[in-house]
Parts: sequence; structure tokens; C-alpha cells
Amino acid sequence: MGENMSEFSSQEKSGLYKAIYTRRDVRSHFISKPLSDEVLARILNAAHHAPSVGFSQPWNFVLIRDDVTKEKIKKSFEQEKIKSASDVDHQKKEKYLSLKLEGILESDVNICITYDPTKFGPFVIGRSSIPETGIYSVCCAVQNLWLAARAEGIGVGWVSILSIELLKEALSLPEHIIPIAYLCLGHVSEFAEKPDLENAKWLTRLELKDVIYFEKWGQVSNTDWEEMNGLIRNVLDYPFIK
Amino acid sequence: MGENMSEFSSQEKSGLYKAIYTRRDVRSHFISKPLSDEVLARILNAAHHAPSVGFSQPWNFVLIRDDVTKEKIKKSFEQEKIKSASDVDHQKKEKYLSLKLEGILESDVNICITYDPTKFGPFVIGRSSIPETGIYSVCCAVQNLWLAARAEGIGVGWVSILSIELLKEALSLPEHIIPIAYLCLGHVSEFAEKPDLENAKWLTRLELKDVIYFEKWGQVSNTDWEEMNGLIRNVLDYPFIK
Repeated sequence: MGENMSEFSSQEKSGLYKAIYTRRDVRSHFISKPLSDEVLARILNAAHHAPSVGFSQPWNFVLIRDDVTKEKIKKSFEQEKIKSASDVDHQKKEKYLSLKLEGILESDVNICITYDPTKFGPFVIGRSSIPETGIYSVCCAVQNLWLAARAEGIGVGWVSILSIELLKEALSLPEHIIPIAYLCLGHVSEFAEKPDLENAKWLTRLELKDVIYFEKWGQVSNTDWEEMNGLIRNVLDYPFIK
Repeated sequence: MGENMSEFSSQEKSGLYKAIYTRRDVRSHFISKPLSDEVLARILNAAHHAPSVGFSQPWNFVLIRDDVTKEKIKKSFEQEKIKSASDVDHQKKEKYLSLKLEGILESDVNICITYDPTKFGPFVIGRSSIPETGIYSVCCAVQNLWLAARAEGIGVGWVSILSIELLKEALSLPEHIIPIAYLCLGHVSEFAEKPDLENAKWLTRLELKDVIYFEKWGQVSNTDWEEMNGLIRNVLDYPFIK
């Protein structure tokens, strides 16, 4: 690979970080403008170029525009949301129920991303000791899709308040296929400045220093990592984020 | 978010796609040049800005430079690789054993990314119906890290031929913490043009059309998706890929 391919200009670097920092889980801001197939193909190809354990590429993408299917999924969401409300602390329950948590019908395209453990199997390099790595690969494809969509100006929302059984039935998934992500894609009126749940003061963003340990679990400082220990207390979010 | 924040210039878009298409799982190309703490902090902050179910941010990053730990992990890799060889078809076994599958000792920094199901719990929005979504969030953080590293010119290799038990012991992980990814990071002599396992003709890259279905599992064509059906047969990898 030539030098130009290897190095990133500062604008190219900006593009990657901008996608990472301005990506949002979109629920409220879908608009009716249809998603162009050309853009969708680019986004899907980006997802398909995710890393995968043993190069197994164990993902499939089921593209959904049919309202009958969307309605079934939406109904499952509603049932599961009510079920889950019983797990919420009394004082937060009303707030929980008032949150907008999906855009299944408002978004132009829904995509179910699935995991097929049989693809290129049974032996897949790197999957013997930790079989779950096949699923981890599919999640990396989801994140590629999400970032590519963001760069293309397309919003993505991940709906996880769903019955896996109903999803499999609605999409005719074979028994051995595991649905990993159900995504809603479409044009948006805006990308919110912060995640919806941060805006709603449901939870706050942790500081970077709160998720880093040195050498062993629980070690928040270490003489070999002194400079780093300072840096993670002062790291900036992407510069153009005000 | 202002208009400039929302839209991507063509160069910014290029940057994102370049990271996606030129990212590699690095095993053979690490060089001894140390990784700067500033770059590492930027990469980690990008990972920390991944999506997470219910904004639970359930990841931790254990940064490792200690050779004693690296040697322990390397030993576990060697043991697990030999174990896994018994799963490989006879005619592919020799090739499998000859492949270089990790750069634990050659890379400057190793990072274990973990999942903590108790963080902000027990109730996490969106995790009641599909508890695995907590783990999926951590995988999205891995992919953010990988892409940010690529844009910074840093190679990343994911080692999954490892004993989870030994990893937990080596890093003093508490019982309830699940290690998701063990990554090797460092400067590289080059980023290979294709994945190592594609170069080694272990497996081939699937075409995009082979991983896409319309409306239901198994439907490879659909009258509502005719244009798309043509596009996914002709989609280009990122333009500057020769």
C-alpha cells in the first residue's frame, strides 16, 4: 500500500473523528424523504468491510421497507416496552415510559443484521477458544454501518426492545440464525448535539479517566503511565465540538 | 448542531471510508517505535464515544505495557493455538499452524476491553429483552478504537486465541467482568493491502450481493428493490482502492 494510502491528511482524520463524535442513536428526528439506494449500497458495503474472526464474514443484512413487517416489529416493541417497565424503579418509571425509544415506522428503511455461525465453518480461525467472537464481528459491522451512515447524513437508530422470537418469525430467519441488531435508517431533521438519554438527564457521560485502568483491573495510577494518567484527565472531545 | 457540524465535506467523508477500507488486523508488521500517549488518549476517547445500550457505557480499558503480563498472555495463546489445531481439517492443519496470528510481544501496548454488566444497573434501558446488547455495545467501542487507530497510523490486532480464565487471572478481573477483546497496538512497517487471511488464500471476500436479502431471509430479489439489486452487484470499494 503506497504512502498516500497509508497516511491520513488532517482533513481525512477529521472526517473519521467527526463521524465518531457526532453519530447519534436517532429516534425522534426521522423525516419522510426517502433514502437513496446508492447511499444505502455504500453504507452496506462499509459494513461488509468490518473485521471478522478468521475472515468469516458471518453477517447478513435483511433490508425492510414493507409496512406489514414494520408494524409487526413495532407491536413487539410496544409489548416488550411494557414488560420491561416492571423492572424500572418506581420513581423513574413515568420518565421511562415517556421516552421516545424507536423510529420503526417513521424511518424509510429498517435493517436486521444477523449472525450465521455456520458460514465458512465449522472451523473458523480464532473462534475455538472464544466462540462469541463470531457475534463480536457482526457488532463491528453494525458500527461501520452506523459511522458510514453518519458521514452520508443518514440517521440510524438501534431498537433492542424486541422479542427475538417474534423478529425471527417476522423475517423468516432459520433456526440457527441469530438476529444481532435491528436498525432504523433514514434522513433526519437534525443530529442532536448529545445523546437523547444524556439530554433527558437519564444518565451522564462518564469521564475517560473513569473507564481506564493501568496494567491490572482497578489500578488507577501506575508509575509507568504517569503522563497518560494526566492526559486522560484532560483529553478533548473532537476539537470542533463546542 | 449547526449545519457545518451536520454535513460532511467530501474529504471528511473520504477520511471515514478510508479508515474503514484500509483498516487491517495487524499481526506481522509491528515495529518497535513507541506509541505516543497523546495518540493513545485520542484513540481511547474515540472508543469511549461508541454507542451503548441505555447509555450504559459498560466498557473498561486495561492498558498493558508490562512484559510479564504480555508473556503470560502469549503463553496462553500458544497453548490455545495447539488445542484448536485439532479442530482443523487434516489438509489445512499445516497451513493453519504456519500462520502468524498475533503480535502480543512485538506491539508496544496491549489493551483488554471488558464488559461490566453491573454498571448503571440493574435496569438498563433497552437491555431487558436482549441482555446481550450490553456486550454488543463494547464491540462497537472496539470498532471505534480500531478505526481511530487506523486514522492515526497505528496498527491494531485482535487476539482471540486465548483462555478467558487465564486472561481474567492475569489482569485480576473480578468474577463478574467479561473480557471482550484483547488488542495489540503499535506503529507498523505497513498496512497490508488486503487482510492477511485473504492474502494467504485461506478464505475469499464474499461479494456484497451474497450477504443481502430483501424483506425476508433468503429473498435475493424483490420487485420493490430492483434498483438496489443492481447496485449491490456493482458497488465499488472505496474509490481510491486500486
